[in-house]
Amino acid sequence: MNIAIVGASGGIGTAITRKLADKAGTIYCCSRNITRVSQGDSAAANRVYLPIDITDESSVATVADRILNDKITLDQVFVTTGLLQNDSIQPEKTLRQFNTDTFLNLMAINAAGPILVAKHLLPLMRRDAPAFFGVLSARVGSIGDNRLGGWHSYRASKTALNMLIRNCAIEFRRTHPQLVIASLHPGTVDTDLSAPFQKNVPADKLFTADRAAAALLDVATGLTPEHSGHCFAWDGEMVIP
Amino acid sequence: MNIAIVGASGGIGTAITRKLADKAGTIYCCSRNITRVSQGDSAAANRVYLPIDITDESSVATVADRILNDKITLDQVFVTTGLLQNDSIQPEKTLRQFNTDTFLNLMAINAAGPILVAKHLLPLMRRDAPAFFGVLSARVGSIGDNRLGGWHSYRASKTALNMLIRNCAIEFRRTHPQLVIASLHPGTVDTDLSAPFQKNVPADKLFTADRAAAALLDVATGLTPEHSGHCFAWDGEMVIP
Repeated sequence: MNIAIVGASGGIGTAITRKLADKAGTIYCCSRNITRVSQGDSAAANRVYLPIDITDESSVATVADRILNDKITLDQVFVTTGLLQNDSIQPEKTLRQFNTDTFLNLMAINAAGPILVAKHLLPLMRRDAPAFFGVLSARVGSIGDNRLGGWHSYRASKTALNMLIRNCAIEFRRTHPQLVIASLHPGTVDTDLSAPFQKNVPADKLFTADRAAAALLDVATGLTPEHSGHCFAWDGEMVIP
Repeated sequence: MNIAIVGASGGIGTAITRKLADKAGTIYCCSRNITRVSQGDSAAANRVYLPIDITDESSVATVADRILNDKITLDQVFVTTGLLQNDSIQPEKTLRQFNTDTFLNLMAINAAGPILVAKHLLPLMRRDAPAFFGVLSARVGSIGDNRLGGWHSYRASKTALNMLIRNCAIEFRRTHPQLVIASLHPGTVDTDLSAPFQKNVPADKLFTADRAAAALLDVATGLTPEHSGHCFAWDGEMVIP
């Protein structure tokens, strides 16, 4: 089983890598921050570390070229990237804080980025056996589930991602009938992304990255092609659009 | 009744303006192409023509300042802008055609633009009587309704818009309890936007801009605050997210 993890240096990406590495033939650990990924698990001989910047299509294409040159067919791909806030971006509490730069920035990172990975890696995925392509989305990307509002740009970027994942599923079901393409809601996970927003999360709802990774891998294992194009939460429940 | 139409030079915007002008106190006709708007209806004394570029927040803010200075409270706002294709943008037929520039371009015009209008004009809307703020969306922005795939960037931009409209509705229901904020699917309308894509549309499903405008105004009239935040088609049916 050959695997690619894009965002392998993040909390969830690291945990998924750790859990899958033993089962994998080759596991491509792709990250913007390649040094950080390499540290700590240099023992694993089957891991290939590749730099990637998902906002730069040529960088994504370079990763795909490498996998193609290795004559590797991928069984599983996980895109565990995502941005909620940083030094210059804060999730909007009200519409007054909405601005186009932040909106487009989050769209580029949270929606376009994973879809560039899909564009370049889906054609390298196994056709003759079950396969899985998953991206980290978020329940707050659900329009139907939206009760609280706020976080305008982040929400919209995940909503857009979910639409694009649906489109990918529709497009690849003919050529890859055993492939499942899904968005995944990991719950609130104790990672850098959620760190500033954990104070109202009950302790039993704040998962370690390890627990979230285990849950998502369970979900991925349970999905079949008729689930392709949908969003699933860590507990296996489908998240409405 | 005071009204603002943003995108007043487009097919649907022009038709809505024509239908509402007689009923309106003041009608602000806002368009990037202000000369084109002014032609043909210079007789109407209650029309105020204002230039607007919805991709430039300062331009949107200038329009809001003008309305504020006029001491006008808005009863209805229609944002009838939108881009599907132009000389450099073609809707994607496959994921292979997806590129970030086109994606972000359509996001800026179809999602961020109308929301900048919302940001600056919603606070100017009437609080003490029913009011309506509508943006042109599209059924292809529905994830649940997506059967055909394709048109990746356009679809995702309308999905994002629908999420942002839901967020606006949640945010303004407290201060503006009688205000309805909705996305509208006009059907396939014989305008510049749809011109290259009409060949597979049955004649009875290709609406004139006049008929689409009449249908959308009917829909707007029929909506009440519990409908706020949803997407409605020209026939009044709710479009699932």
